[in-house]
Amino acid sequence: MANRIKKVDREALALIAKGSTVLGAGGGGDPYVGRLMVQQILGEAGSVDVVQIEDLNHNALVLPIAMMGAPQVMQEKFPSGKEIPKLIEMMERLLERKVEAILCIEAGGLNSTIPFIAAAQMGIPIVDADAMGRAFPELQMVTLTLGGMGATPMAMVDDKGNGATFDTISNQWTEKLARALTIEMGGSAMVSLYPILAGPSRPYLIEGSLSTALDMGRILDEHKSGAAHALADTYGGRVLFTGRVRDVERRSDAGFTKGKLVLEGQLDFDGKGMDLSFQNEFLAGWVEGDLVATTPDLITLLDANTGGPVTTDMVKYGLSVHVLGLPCDPIWRSDEAIGLVGPRYFGIDADYQPL
Amino acid sequence: MANRIKKVDREALALIAKGSTVLGAGGGGDPYVGRLMVQQILGEAGSVDVVQIEDLNHNALVLPIAMMGAPQVMQEKFPSGKEIPKLIEMMERLLERKVEAILCIEAGGLNSTIPFIAAAQMGIPIVDADAMGRAFPELQMVTLTLGGMGATPMAMVDDKGNGATFDTISNQWTEKLARALTIEMGGSAMVSLYPILAGPSRPYLIEGSLSTALDMGRILDEHKSGAAHALADTYGGRVLFTGRVRDVERRSDAGFTKGKLVLEGQLDFDGKGMDLSFQNEFLAGWVEGDLVATTPDLITLLDANTGGPVTTDMVKYGLSVHVLGLPCDPIWRSDEAIGLVGPRYFGIDADYQPL
Repeated sequence: MANRIKKVDREALALIAKGSTVLGAGGGGDPYVGRLMVQQILGEAGSVDVVQIEDLNHNALVLPIAMMGAPQVMQEKFPSGKEIPKLIEMMERLLERKVEAILCIEAGGLNSTIPFIAAAQMGIPIVDADAMGRAFPELQMVTLTLGGMGATPMAMVDDKGNGATFDTISNQWTEKLARALTIEMGGSAMVSLYPILAGPSRPYLIEGSLSTALDMGRILDEHKSGAAHALADTYGGRVLFTGRVRDVERRSDAGFTKGKLVLEGQLDFDGKGMDLSFQNEFLAGWVEGDLVATTPDLITLLDANTGGPVTTDMVKYGLSVHVLGLPCDPIWRSDEAIGLVGPRYFGIDADYQPL
Repeated sequence: MANRIKKVDREALALIAKGSTVLGAGGGGDPYVGRLMVQQILGEAGSVDVVQIEDLNHNALVLPIAMMGAPQVMQEKFPSGKEIPKLIEMMERLLERKVEAILCIEAGGLNSTIPFIAAAQMGIPIVDADAMGRAFPELQMVTLTLGGMGATPMAMVDDKGNGATFDTISNQWTEKLARALTIEMGGSAMVSLYPILAGPSRPYLIEGSLSTALDMGRILDEHKSGAAHALADTYGGRVLFTGRVRDVERRSDAGFTKGKLVLEGQLDFDGKGMDLSFQNEFLAGWVEGDLVATTPDLITLLDANTGGPVTTDMVKYGLSVHVLGLPCDPIWRSDEAIGLVGPRYFGIDADYQPL
C-alpha cells in the first residue's frame, strides 16, 4: 500500500477532501464545502497530526466526529466552531474520561474533513482509518457493528445550540432515534458516536483510509479526465459506464436524499443505457437492465471532462460522467456484512455479486 | 384550603388517581390504569411520604417524573419497573447530585400516580404540588416556564430500554425534539425534566395539588352522579352543559390525540347543543355556537350516571355527561401565560374569557 501520512496541512486536506469524495460513493458531502470549512479552521500555517491506530495506547479513547443528515442540507449548515467542543464535552462527560484522538466514521467529502476541524480545535491527532472505507447512509452501517460495538453513548448538537445524547439497545435503534432528531433539528446535525478504544477496535477499522484518500486526490489532480481509468487501474476497479445524464429523479425522504439516475451511453458505451439508484450513496447500477454493481462495492461518478468526483446531490442533466466501480474492503463481504449493507437491505431484489 | 396530606397509601392513591383525572381536564391518562400501576408497585402495606415544598431545604433537588405521549398509548405501556431507576440515574449523572424528592409535573390520572412509583422505588418523598394545576398537552406549558426555568437537562427512556437526554436552548425546542423521539419510541416514553431546587421554584409551583386531588376523589366517591355540581360548588366552577355524546371525532396527529366532540343537551340543556375541541386535553367549549370556556380554565367531563371522570380517550357515543368548568390557577391568567397556553396558541380564534 501507499505511504502513510503523518501530518496534514491545508493543501493535503484539499486533496483528501477530493479523494474521499471518490470513496464517498456519491454521498458523504460536497468536497468543495469540506475544503472551505477546513480553510476557515486550519488557516494558512496550521496542520493536524495523523496517527496510525497501532501507534495509540491500547486503551486510548478515540472519538468519531461526523455530520449526520442529507448531504444537501449538511453542506448548507456551516459549523459555527462551537458545535464540536460542545459535542466532545458531552461525550467526555458521559464517558468520564478525556478523548485522545479523533476518527472519521466514514470516507466522504464532508465526513473526511470535518473531523480535522475537531482534531485542530482539540489539539489532538486524527487516526488514519475509518469505519466504512466508503460512505453509507445509515449509522449502524459501520465495521464496528460487525465487531459488536455500540453506537452509544452518542451525542448530537445542532447549529442553534440544542444537544441530545443517546443510550440505546442496538445500533439500529440509535439510527432510528438519531435520524428522527436529525430531521427535527432541520435535516442535519453534528454527532459523535461509537466511542472506541484503540486496541480492541483495530481489527474492525479500515486502516490507512486518509492516506488512500490523499493518494486518490493526487490521482485526480494528475490525471484529470483520465482519472476514472487511472483509479480503476490503481485500486482494482472498473469503469462500468460512460455516458450523459438523461434524467435525475431526486427526493427527500425520511431524512435521506433518495432517487434514480438514467445515463445515455457515450464512447465505448454508445447506444446503451445505465440506471443507477441511490440513498445518499449509490446503491446499485444496471446496464441495459443487467446489474453490474451493488453496495457494498463502491459506485462513484467522475465528471468525464474534468475528472472531478460528482455526488448524488451535484449530478445534473446533461453532464457526461464515468461510472467507476471499486471493490469494497473485504470486511464487507461476509454474510453478516451483506445483511447489514447489501442490496436487499435497501429493497433491491438482487444478490450481491462482488466486482 | 383543605388539610394537606402527609402520607399516601394504596387507598389514598386510588382517590388521588380519580380526583386528578378531574384536574386532568380530559387528558393526563386513565385513572384506572394509574391505579393498577400503583397497586402493582405499592402493594398492600406500602405508603409514600408526602412533603410540602416549604419543608424541603432551599437547595434540595426535586425531580419531576412523567409519561409523555398520547394518553391512549401511554396506558398501554405499563412501566416495567426498570425505567424509573434508569431515568433517575441519568438525571443524577447529568446534575452530578442526588435527588431528594419527586414532583408531579401535571395533574392527571397517570401523571399524578406514576411519580408515586418513583418515590416508592427511590425511598424518597413526593412533593404536594405540581407545575400545571391541571394537564396540558405540551411540555413547555408549565408554570416553571413562566418562572424562566429550563426543561433541560431532561432524560427520556422507553419500554425497550432505549434512553436519551436533552440540553436545549428553549423549552419550546425541548418539546419539539422530545416529541419527535416520543413518536419514534412508539408513542410514549417515561421522562424526567425541569429539575428544580425547592426554594427558587416554590413561587411558581401549584402547591397542595395532591391534597386537592385527594379531596376531589372523596367528593366523587361521596356524591356519585351529583359530583359535578358538588365539585363546581366547592371549587368555584360551573356545570357548563349536560348532554349525550352524539359524535366523537378523534385522530392521532404528531404524537397527540386531537379531535372534536358534539353533545346533545339533556335536562336543563334540553334542545341545545355543545361542541368541544381537544388536544389530549379539552381546549374550548361552545354552547349553541357561543364560547363558554377555554384553556387555561379546566373543562372536564363527568359521567352523568356514575359521576366518574371521563377523559378524551374514554368518551364514547351515547354516554351522558356533565361538562364541568373549573377556574385555572391564577398564575395562568397573566398575558404571558395566556400566550403560552391560551386559546390562540392552539389555533382557536378567540380571546380567553376567565370562567
